Amino acid sequence: MAVATQSLEELCINSIRFLAIDAVEKAKSGHPGLPMGAAPMAFVLWDRIMRYNPKNPDWFNRDRFVLSAGHGCMLQYAMLYLTGYDGVTIEDIKQFRQWGSRTPGHPENFETEGVEVTTGPLGQGIANGVGLAMAEAHLAAKFNKPDATIVDHYTYVILGDGCNQEGVSGEACSLAGHLGLGKVIALYDDNHISIDGSTDVSFTEDVSKRFEAYGWHVLHVEDGNTDIDGITKAIEEAKAVTDKPSMIKVTTTIGYGSPGKGNTAGVHGAALGGDEVTATRKYLVWNHEPFEVPEDALSRFRKAVDRGAEAEAEWNKTYADYKAKYPEDAAEFDRMMSGTLPEGWEKALPTYTPEDKALATRKNSEMTLNALAEVIPELIGGSADLTHSNLTFMEVSGSFQKGAYENRNLRFGVREHGMGAICNGIALHDSGLIAYGATFLIFTDYMRAAIRLSALSEAGCLWIMTHDSVALGEDGPTHQPIETIASLRAIPNLVVIRPADGNETSGAYKVAISNRKRPTLMAFTRQGLPNLAGSSIEGTEKGAYAVVECDGTPDLILIGTGSEVSLCVEAAEKLSASGKKVRVVSMPSWELFEDQDEAYRESVLPKAVTKRLAVEAGCSFGWERYVGFEGDTISIDRFGASAPGGTNMEKFGYTVENVVAKAEAL
Amino acid sequence: MAVATQSLEELCINSIRFLAIDAVEKAKSGHPGLPMGAAPMAFVLWDRIMRYNPKNPDWFNRDRFVLSAGHGCMLQYAMLYLTGYDGVTIEDIKQFRQWGSRTPGHPENFETEGVEVTTGPLGQGIANGVGLAMAEAHLAAKFNKPDATIVDHYTYVILGDGCNQEGVSGEACSLAGHLGLGKVIALYDDNHISIDGSTDVSFTEDVSKRFEAYGWHVLHVEDGNTDIDGITKAIEEAKAVTDKPSMIKVTTTIGYGSPGKGNTAGVHGAALGGDEVTATRKYLVWNHEPFEVPEDALSRFRKAVDRGAEAEAEWNKTYADYKAKYPEDAAEFDRMMSGTLPEGWEKALPTYTPEDKALATRKNSEMTLNALAEVIPELIGGSADLTHSNLTFMEVSGSFQKGAYENRNLRFGVREHGMGAICNGIALHDSGLIAYGATFLIFTDYMRAAIRLSALSEAGCLWIMTHDSVALGEDGPTHQPIETIASLRAIPNLVVIRPADGNETSGAYKVAISNRKRPTLMAFTRQGLPNLAGSSIEGTEKGAYAVVECDGTPDLILIGTGSEVSLCVEAAEKLSASGKKVRVVSMPSWELFEDQDEAYRESVLPKAVTKRLAVEAGCSFGWERYVGFEGDTISIDRFGASAPGGTNMEKFGYTVENVVAKAEAL
Repeated sequence: MAVATQSLEELCINSIRFLAIDAVEKAKSGHPGLPMGAAPMAFVLWDRIMRYNPKNPDWFNRDRFVLSAGHGCMLQYAMLYLTGYDGVTIEDIKQFRQWGSRTPGHPENFETEGVEVTTGPLGQGIANGVGLAMAEAHLAAKFNKPDATIVDHYTYVILGDGCNQEGVSGEACSLAGHLGLGKVIALYDDNHISIDGSTDVSFTEDVSKRFEAYGWHVLHVEDGNTDIDGITKAIEEAKAVTDKPSMIKVTTTIGYGSPGKGNTAGVHGAALGGDEVTATRKYLVWNHEPFEVPEDALSRFRKAVDRGAEAEAEWNKTYADYKAKYPEDAAEFDRMMSGTLPEGWEKALPTYTPEDKALATRKNSEMTLNALAEVIPELIGGSADLTHSNLTFMEVSGSFQKGAYENRNLRFGVREHGMGAICNGIALHDSGLIAYGATFLIFTDYMRAAIRLSALSEAGCLWIMTHDSVALGEDGPTHQPIETIASLRAIPNLVVIRPADGNETSGAYKVAISNRKRPTLMAFTRQGLPNLAGSSIEGTEKGAYAVVECDGTPDLILIGTGSEVSLCVEAAEKLSASGKKVRVVSMPSWELFEDQDEAYRESVLPKAVTKRLAVEAGCSFGWERYVGFEGDTISIDRFGASAPGGTNMEKFGYTVENVVAKAEAL
Repeated sequence: MAVATQSLEELCINSIRFLAIDAVEKAKSGHPGLPMGAAPMAFVLWDRIMRYNPKNPDWFNRDRFVLSAGHGCMLQYAMLYLTGYDGVTIEDIKQFRQWGSRTPGHPENFETEGVEVTTGPLGQGIANGVGLAMAEAHLAAKFNKPDATIVDHYTYVILGDGCNQEGVSGEACSLAGHLGLGKVIALYDDNHISIDGSTDVSFTEDVSKRFEAYGWHVLHVEDGNTDIDGITKAIEEAKAVTDKPSMIKVTTTIGYGSPGKGNTAGVHGAALGGDEVTATRKYLVWNHEPFEVPEDALSRFRKAVDRGAEAEAEWNKTYADYKAKYPEDAAEFDRMMSGTLPEGWEKALPTYTPEDKALATRKNSEMTLNALAEVIPELIGGSADLTHSNLTFMEVSGSFQKGAYENRNLRFGVREHGMGAICNGIALHDSGLIAYGATFLIFTDYMRAAIRLSALSEAGCLWIMTHDSVALGEDGPTHQPIETIASLRAIPNLVVIRPADGNETSGAYKVAISNRKRPTLMAFTRQGLPNLAGSSIEGTEKGAYAVVECDGTPDLILIGTGSEVSLCVEAAEKLSASGKKVRVVSMPSWELFEDQDEAYRESVLPKAVTKRLAVEAGCSFGWERYVGFEGDTISIDRFGASAPGGTNMEKFGYTVENVVAKAEAL
């Protein structure tokens, strides 16, 4: 359909399309297809629906937008530029996908103002969106008053066929339906094309029916290419249904406007190419230079600036009234929004002496979490259906449910991956909330993509992982971490901590709560561990420290983590009794230790001492960093076994006798 | 409902229940709830429905059974014992969950005869079941003749609420619906209870409607506790629908028969305890000693032995006829079933000289895969919607689709996790099929749980992973592996290979195809790489070898993998020109190298040479194993960046100049 004359709205929509086309063409890389097909829905959202302030992307009460189909990021960059965000200029768009640019190949919240979450790995964005909406629902329940509504925004998500095929989206959407999150509005860009071609080759399910099964309100816009009033009406209908999330299937043509490549996989992930760009310009009657946006279109888009300023001013007025009426609530609101932790919160951290009862560190974790829950009201989280194994229920609150969003215990169900992405969404709501997710350590494998994204996108989540070794016992090798700790340590920007006892558990939480831009994964035992004489919160914060010291330069250093530190301490006693000078280093966190200065590191692990034995109930992978060619490890480089935990530890060599023997062999 | 007199069938069903109760009680650990609730459906399956031969668990044409809710494994062990498998005796059941027993805490195919796949991590089993059914459908299409049906079995799966919450099950079931796999029959043990209590806290979707949306045939048995005729009828109806998989929701009471703990989470994952066992015995009128099975019940179950022998005999007769009529097909069938690869297959592996064109190793992979596809008809697999990026299409065949199951190219859609578990199912169908799955290397994070299970359960899958470093370029950090290779190397029993060029790609495939009980993950580049003079298939098989040699003991060893080997070769030339003695070791696989004897390893990396520089476009984690305290690495210990691949490689230090500089610094 060649368009002879264009309405202003068509001009706007084509402006979006051509910014995407031109940017991808210049970069010779990128995904023009989605922006070309989804431009109308983006136009409707930014021009008619969403409340946001381009000049203050951090305005608290903004509607959140998530491009779950992150490869189509030129759509988002185009909208940020067109509506007047300072973070994305036309120059930035010309730098699309170049080194150091603010317009990387997928949306990254830490690179680009106005981008809420980092997407690209499919399905994550819609799950993040569920998290954003849970954050909104919680804060609304917590702060709003019958006569004053200060928390009130929607979360809009554009997702594609790929997102809808990924299990993580199903997990999160099932939970969103259960929770009745009426302020999630997902626009499904139903374009029938994925990288392999027509979705007919692998994806013929009835997506709408599936979302109905989840308890969503489902709508359909049949012509998403041109029917902007239809899109608008559907979104308005979605907003009117307040007790269910809404999914609007918007049927579009991928690469709409490209006569030769529209509706093919060819337009999904590659530049159109010069000839096809020319053909598309002709087809859409677009007589503008690359990167040129017609004046009329730009001014129409830029009305968003005034609209946004007004919206924020209005909210500011509402908030000022609120502050006058509810000064204590407002003070708390201000504190949370500023990301300031309650003063003195760390005083709540429990400490222990060797006289205290031996406990599983998961139990120490429960005590610490509950102590912190009392003084840190922004702590919110839960377990993937292992609440009473992970011990992550905060007694100070109830379960977050439909009609009870003020509660802070999230019930994720058996949905580890969805949990991870939801926690990331809550953390990136940027309103002070501290999200935690819990499961057995081994099942980090199910949610690894989300854990990685927490590290990449600076979402300071707490990942509370229990049952951290073969000592968990009878559940056997499918449930026993071997390589798990090592594989998590390898993730950049993730702090991994495996505490040895109660004090180290408190230290782990201190680090985790303090790090608001770096996630922390804590690994806790199922089994009881003695409280050590030498353990401390401060030592834990440094990642490694001597828990048993000897006179002068040690002959040997035993390095332990978690449940194996107490073994090392006992072994050191025996070795000392036979005249050896032995230091025991507890090393709960490699990352924290590597953050210390050279002098500190040398003081703990002096280069001169090359006889080193690392003891950890996991694989040896990576330990050569600390034990070198001359050291040794007591480790497990095979899968575990189903047997009582004590039996396993003995069979795998975690006995005082074996530590002593291996040490003597060195 | 107290039961005064019991029919023989009730007696049988209660026998299952009490074996589970007694075994868990003795182990003081385990999950009695599911076996107690699901005993009737297990009875129906084993007594009335399934074809299997207890005395030959490997009989090819057996119906496959998968307990996706693997924690309920006492159900499966009870059935194996009761129906007369030699692999599980009453003594084995008494050893439930003990060191070295054949009855571990979750079903493990490599420990227990009669167990098809390893389950426990939820959702995997149903996805394995889809794979088993795909294997059956493929072999049926390949071997059956209008007048001779030799491949014809069902795959039955029992899955629970947990499985149905996991995304991986949704992915696989959506694909199963698309493919119309009529011989998958899933029994959903709808007991409303998971570890956190009632599923009402997090899981209230309409599961049946969701499966209908996937294109499944859905049935409901309202009283799964007692209505065995209803269960039977539903399964018969499911079998009658041949063009859709069937899901039978069987509503049960978890822990049925326990008056105090039935229908509670308390019976899910812990022993009932002495008093409750007594109460349950009373309630179910069970006057037998622990582990005692009434004679009548046992003889009824053991009829399975004769039934199985007859079924197999009948099949043998059919097969004998087939063999007479179709000797060539039968020879091929026999070859595949015996797990023998076609003679001389390895001659198809391409080799290269430096004169050959520089290609991306993903392209070498495509050539190798296609060459092998011609000579190894049992190769079957595909990509998670990245077919033309991963380059994994076998031109010799078409797409495996409903009505075209004879084809070997699987179209997984954007479902990495489902793909992984499906490949495991195909591999564990135990009929010679060699399954492969492909995606971008970074997205192994989505399917890590399935990759781990391939390693644990000895499923010799090929994991074909492309776009293996920051050199993939513009897609940016969400798509760029940094820690990925390291985290995969850490998995026990998984061979990871990162080939440097064409010859090493052939070597990688040689290893991967040969290893039928050990999965191999291959990491290929997006970008072109020169063919090296010193590279070889044989060297690759040894994991590491010198590609550039010097006279006498080297001053320095450069260790490279994949795309960085050619960099090392160039750097070595420069260093040699300035008089240094430099060896370049190509190290495509740590695991294969560590499998070599001490002498070989010493010959490649002599202890005396401590100046070692490892060059890999990934994190440094683990490399200390080979470079020690005195060596160094060129590595990336941060996330990647969105920029052209060449720019990234330069910015991250992967230049000849930097290798030379770092080497000289050593």
